[in-house]
Amino acid sequence: MDNFVYHNPVKIVFGRGTIAQLPDLLPAGEKVMVTYGGGSIRRNGVYDQVAAALADRPWCELGGIEPNPRYETCRKAVDFAKTEGAGFLLAVGGGSVLDATKFIAVGMRYPAGRDPWEIMLTADRVADATPLGCVMTLPATGSEMNGNAVITRDATKEKLFFKSAKVMPRFSILDPSTTFSLPPRQTANGVIDAFVHVMEQYLTYPVDAPLQDRQAEAILRTLTEAGPKALAEPENYGARANVMWCATNALNGLIGCGVPADFASHRIGHELTALYELDHARTLAITLPAVMKHLREAKKGKLVQYAERVWDVTEGDDEARADAAVARTEAFFRSLGAGTTLADYDLPREAVGLVADRLEARGQKLSEQLPLGRADVEAILALAAE
Amino acid sequence: MDNFVYHNPVKIVFGRGTIAQLPDLLPAGEKVMVTYGGGSIRRNGVYDQVAAALADRPWCELGGIEPNPRYETCRKAVDFAKTEGAGFLLAVGGGSVLDATKFIAVGMRYPAGRDPWEIMLTADRVADATPLGCVMTLPATGSEMNGNAVITRDATKEKLFFKSAKVMPRFSILDPSTTFSLPPRQTANGVIDAFVHVMEQYLTYPVDAPLQDRQAEAILRTLTEAGPKALAEPENYGARANVMWCATNALNGLIGCGVPADFASHRIGHELTALYELDHARTLAITLPAVMKHLREAKKGKLVQYAERVWDVTEGDDEARADAAVARTEAFFRSLGAGTTLADYDLPREAVGLVADRLEARGQKLSEQLPLGRADVEAILALAAE
Repeated sequence: MDNFVYHNPVKIVFGRGTIAQLPDLLPAGEKVMVTYGGGSIRRNGVYDQVAAALADRPWCELGGIEPNPRYETCRKAVDFAKTEGAGFLLAVGGGSVLDATKFIAVGMRYPAGRDPWEIMLTADRVADATPLGCVMTLPATGSEMNGNAVITRDATKEKLFFKSAKVMPRFSILDPSTTFSLPPRQTANGVIDAFVHVMEQYLTYPVDAPLQDRQAEAILRTLTEAGPKALAEPENYGARANVMWCATNALNGLIGCGVPADFASHRIGHELTALYELDHARTLAITLPAVMKHLREAKKGKLVQYAERVWDVTEGDDEARADAAVARTEAFFRSLGAGTTLADYDLPREAVGLVADRLEARGQKLSEQLPLGRADVEAILALAAE
Repeated sequence: MDNFVYHNPVKIVFGRGTIAQLPDLLPAGEKVMVTYGGGSIRRNGVYDQVAAALADRPWCELGGIEPNPRYETCRKAVDFAKTEGAGFLLAVGGGSVLDATKFIAVGMRYPAGRDPWEIMLTADRVADATPLGCVMTLPATGSEMNGNAVITRDATKEKLFFKSAKVMPRFSILDPSTTFSLPPRQTANGVIDAFVHVMEQYLTYPVDAPLQDRQAEAILRTLTEAGPKALAEPENYGARANVMWCATNALNGLIGCGVPADFASHRIGHELTALYELDHARTLAITLPAVMKHLREAKKGKLVQYAERVWDVTEGDDEARADAAVARTEAFFRSLGAGTTLADYDLPREAVGLVADRLEARGQKLSEQLPLGRADVEAILALAAE
């Protein structure tokens, strides 16, 4: 096991009816700015629950945060929040709303005259951020229990990531019943996103960390059961609750303690979304199986373990089990309605070169496991082509 | 899944050589009081590592905290800490040292003229406590990542529990190499204590919480592998690290999210220690199997699941698997050198009535799963008699 630091002070408030606890969770005396997206929270009753809980205090709201939230939108939101004198941000919605709110929180306290996009491009620490909380209504990103955010910049078609303890939510309210009304595509996307988050912290190589391995496998197996059930029975509270808690546990840092990771699937996927506006999770359904194939030898030990423990594969030798590991993963994503090749989404063959160009130009590390370069990106996307 | 709140802000710093990070973890400007036990930290080099890390700042020390730490010792420590003007407590040792330090932290800020033992007897919240951290050198209690403490009062032979977020460590340093020199009995005790912590949050009844079940099973299985290995190879870093991380995960609250618990084994065990000074873990090796037998029908579903998933029992019907669940647990404890009956420790038969008397007089809840009473305590201990 490698050395590690684990520190996750996010308070999780989980269960039916928990939005009503907002008054006890919010700091006294601060004006709250509620951020949200396209209006689904108005249709499913969540907006009304939040408004009722905030009734006795000063608050303002800012809707219209888009999926793959935009830098440009966040900059305007920073100005609005400052004008309103907001002292606490409350994100209500999914990972996009929360990620945008994290960026807004940094922007509100960023040095005057400088552009907060800098935090996406450098390893500089975020010095300060307005405190924030969230009501999470879309289990997927795990953003409700970490300090990560992904923001897209329209002007340059860039989709980039930053991470800071300063933007970890003070609290996250997770009421699974708020997810009953999710469209099937979003439910499936959330399951895939969470599944791939786990795989990226698990499918590397053994480092004698059997607890972390099993904690990861626990999430994977539960997603394979609860994910399809939530799709088949949208108002099954148990299935929704299990998917939701899996998504949080998938990226709260615990399963990554002391083990290597490999976030290549996400890094390549982000480029596909930035270029073609393909749903984030669908890009992962393409990239993860291709990464598994391209790095088969380096990941063989874990591929076999994954086949055995997550998919109960007991037949065949290691080669057959490694094959099964990839095949079962692809079949799972397809069973959720997601294609697993570029061709499934009519993405052009030129995507291979374009993505490779962009990642090469960025010069950032592609994988934590291996020093992957341009040729690897091309090989991975070629494997994903059809 | 039941509603829950999960909030665990303890910062874990895990791995070889991490004691040297103390200067970055301690608050600036506060005088540190280092607390420890009988002197093993002087023999194994941990004291010297801590002293070296504290070299540049004001600190004082207080040794002599006993196993099953005493209220009487803690009261004297409070006076000493106040005289010294300590503003931060650093527990260096195992769960006993840390639990005592938590009680001292409360005592230092307890209202003048009142006795902090009150917090053991009432449900009152702890209003304040001196901040504390720890260097944990004995994986067992999980105290390094929770707000729990167990304190024994000599005058009344009581061993009682309190819990408060105010005494959660600000940080816990866990260097597995500090556990190389543990005597085999303490290593085994730690494995048993952690194992039973998990069982008490797992072995109740199904509530459609498959992730929490599997997270619990992950710890149990890992303990069955890493525990014996750590005993056989005391300087095997990997085995020590896996036992240590299991013990922390066993009682940091995560596996208990949204599920019922049943801490009857601990509550009965505490009485046996208070009366007969038997090691805490050895009392659990007695009480857990007896609780499993006594509540066999109420716990049947989970007993069967546990036999299958933790012990790979695939033969026989549910009755046979429930039998195997108990038998494998007893065999595991015995393989670690712990007896599983009162007779194994020459405890008198009168213990049955004495413990039942004491628990009845206390009038506190014995189990979270079922309303157990005096007759249940007697039945459980009768099952444990021989």
